[in-house]
Amino acid sequence: MTQASKTTDASGPWVVGVDLGGTNIRLALYRDLVGERRRAAQATDAERAAAEVIDPVLTHREPVGSARSPEALAERIKHQIDRMLARAVEQGMAIDAERAVIPVGIGIAAMLRGHDGEVANAPNLEWRDQPFGHLLRAQLGARHPVGLYNDVNAITYGEYAFGAGIGATDVLGVFFGTGIGGGVVAARQLVEGGSNCAGEIGHIKVAFGPDAPLCGCGGRGCIEAFAGGRNLQARLRAELSAGTKSTILALAGDAEYVTPGHLDDAAGDGDAYAVAVHDQLVPLVASTLAGAIFLLNPDRLILGGGLLMRAPVLRQRIIAAIPSYLTQAQLDILEVVDTKLGEEAGILGSALLASERLGDARA
Amino acid sequence: MTQASKTTDASGPWVVGVDLGGTNIRLALYRDLVGERRRAAQATDAERAAAEVIDPVLTHREPVGSARSPEALAERIKHQIDRMLARAVEQGMAIDAERAVIPVGIGIAAMLRGHDGEVANAPNLEWRDQPFGHLLRAQLGARHPVGLYNDVNAITYGEYAFGAGIGATDVLGVFFGTGIGGGVVAARQLVEGGSNCAGEIGHIKVAFGPDAPLCGCGGRGCIEAFAGGRNLQARLRAELSAGTKSTILALAGDAEYVTPGHLDDAAGDGDAYAVAVHDQLVPLVASTLAGAIFLLNPDRLILGGGLLMRAPVLRQRIIAAIPSYLTQAQLDILEVVDTKLGEEAGILGSALLASERLGDARA
Repeated sequence: MTQASKTTDASGPWVVGVDLGGTNIRLALYRDLVGERRRAAQATDAERAAAEVIDPVLTHREPVGSARSPEALAERIKHQIDRMLARAVEQGMAIDAERAVIPVGIGIAAMLRGHDGEVANAPNLEWRDQPFGHLLRAQLGARHPVGLYNDVNAITYGEYAFGAGIGATDVLGVFFGTGIGGGVVAARQLVEGGSNCAGEIGHIKVAFGPDAPLCGCGGRGCIEAFAGGRNLQARLRAELSAGTKSTILALAGDAEYVTPGHLDDAAGDGDAYAVAVHDQLVPLVASTLAGAIFLLNPDRLILGGGLLMRAPVLRQRIIAAIPSYLTQAQLDILEVVDTKLGEEAGILGSALLASERLGDARA
Repeated sequence: MTQASKTTDASGPWVVGVDLGGTNIRLALYRDLVGERRRAAQATDAERAAAEVIDPVLTHREPVGSARSPEALAERIKHQIDRMLARAVEQGMAIDAERAVIPVGIGIAAMLRGHDGEVANAPNLEWRDQPFGHLLRAQLGARHPVGLYNDVNAITYGEYAFGAGIGATDVLGVFFGTGIGGGVVAARQLVEGGSNCAGEIGHIKVAFGPDAPLCGCGGRGCIEAFAGGRNLQARLRAELSAGTKSTILALAGDAEYVTPGHLDDAAGDGDAYAVAVHDQLVPLVASTLAGAIFLLNPDRLILGGGLLMRAPVLRQRIIAAIPSYLTQAQLDILEVVDTKLGEEAGILGSALLASERLGDARA
C-alpha cells in the first residue's frame, strides 16, 4: 500500500528513511529534513506545541515475509526505493531522479558491529554476522549513500530532533517493550559508541549471583530480566500459575493470558501481589535511570515503549522515585517526558541521520 | 617558580592552561595544541609509545594561599597570565602580546552549573554559587576568551587527546582519589551534559535504604561512599579501631594511620579482613563501571587516581571482574589502561578545550 501526501510541489534535498522490523519494511521519502530540524530547533514553545509530526512526501509499507535473507532484503529495499522515486517523478515532484544524491537511512532492530553496517545479531530476522551495509551499498550505488542505524538509536534521535526532545541538548531515551532499549544524545549528537553499541541500558546489572534472573542476552540480573515485557510477563504467568493469589487472574481470565498491563491495573486497585511486584521493580528501574543520568546529565529523559504505555501506574511510580537517587544538580535541568512521534520516530531519525551525515546539505 | 622550556622559537596559535586546585594555581603556556592533537592522532603506535608528554613553553606555579575569593583569584590569574606573556616576549617568542587572541582554559575542582562558568560548588575553595566565569571574563577581556571546565572532565580530555586515550574515539575516564570522578568522551567530543555535570559516576547508587553508607554528597549508597579514598579510609580506621583483627594494623602502626594502601598490601598477603573488604568492593566497582560501559560503549577505559595507583591488587581485581558484567559486544573493543600524563593531564585538557572552542585555529 503506497500513499501520497498533499505536498507535491516539494523541493530541497531528498532523503529516504527505511524501518526494517521483524514484521514490516516501511519506506518514507522526505525532503529537506536538515532544514526541518533547524526550523524545529528555532521554533517557539507555542509553535512546537502546535506543530504536527513531519509528513513524508511518499510512504510504502510491505511485509518482510519469508524471503528475509540479507541479500534478498537489500535487493527489495533497492527495488522499492527505485519505485518510490519513480512515483515521485510521475507526480511532478522536483526530483532529479537520474542524478541527485539521495541518501538512505535504515533503522534495524539489531546489534551492529562498528560503523560500516555489519549486523552482529538481528534476532527478529535471525541474522548473525551479516555484512548488510556492504550488500546495501552494492545494491544502491554511489547515488544512494547508506547509513544503517540501531532502531532504538534512530528512535531516540528522531524524538530528539522532531518530537519529545525538541529544544533539549542532551537526551536519554529509554524504551520499555518486550526488552529495554536506550539511546543517548549528547550535545546534540547521537552517541553511538566505539563499536556502535552504545545505549544498552537494558543490560545493566541490578542483581548478582547465580540466582539472579536470566535475561534474553544470556546474562543474569539485567534490568531487562526484571522489567522487560517478555521477562516480566513470563514471571507473572509462572508465579500466578503456581498458585499466587491476585486480582490479576480475574482481570486476565487465566494465568496464560496475563500481561504487564493487567499487573498495572491490579496494582492501581491495590492488589497486594501486584503492588509487591511494583515495589520490587520501581527502585531497580529508577536507580538504573538515575545512574545513567549521573553519567550523562540529560536535560530531557524520554520514557517510552509499549510496556510503559500500558502501565501508567508503574510509569508514574518510576518517575516519582528517580529524584531520590539523584542530587539537585541533575534534577535542576531534567525534564521527564513521554514519546511524541509514535511509530514515526525511528524512520524520521534514520532519515535525518542519513541526511546530516551523507547528504548534500549536511548539517 | 617559573620555568622556560628549551623551545623559544615557537610559533603558531597560543593558549594558556590553568589548573586551579585547592592548594596550588598552575599556569602553562602552550602553542598549537590543535596541531599537536592532530599529529598525535595520526601518529603510528611506535611514534606514540616514544612520544613525550607535550611540553609547555612556559609554566608558573604558586600557592592558592588565603586570598581565595573568586574576585581575588580572577585578578591573580589575570596578573599571572600577563606576566607569563611578557616573559614569553622577553624571551623572543613570536607572540603578538598586544593583539593575538590567546584563549585561556581553566580546570577547577568544582561542580559547575551550565556552560558560562558558574561555579555551583567548589568545596576546596569553599565557594558556592559563584559567577567565576563572569569575573574572569571581566578581568581578561576579549583578547583572552575563557573556558571553565570541571577538573575531571579536563583530565579525561587531556588523557584522551595526548595520553592514555590516543587513538580511541570513545573514552570513559574514572579516577579514584579522595572521591571518585569520571569523564566521558563520545565520538571524540567531551560529553559535558545539559548543565555541565556529566560524568558523575561516583554518585551512582549501589546500595539502598537508610543503612547504606553516607557519602560526602549528602546521599547514601553512592559507589564513592564505598570506594572513594576518604570514605574507605574512614571505614577502615573505624572498623580496626573497634577491634577487628587484621595485619593492616601492623603495617600502619596504628588504626589512625591506616590508608587504603595498607588495605591493598594486606589483601595481597592474604589477610582475611582485607580480602573480605576487597570482596565487597570489587563487584560494586566493577558492576558500576560495566553499567557505564553498556551506556557508552567506550573503546578505552582509563582507570586512574591516587587510590588505585597505591592499590594494585584492588585495581587488578576490578579489571578482572568487569567482563562478567558485560557481553562480548562491549568487550570486543574495550581496552583498559592506566593514566599516562599524571599531573599534566588536566592543564593540557583545559588548554586544548579552550584552543578548540575559543581559539583562532578552532578544530
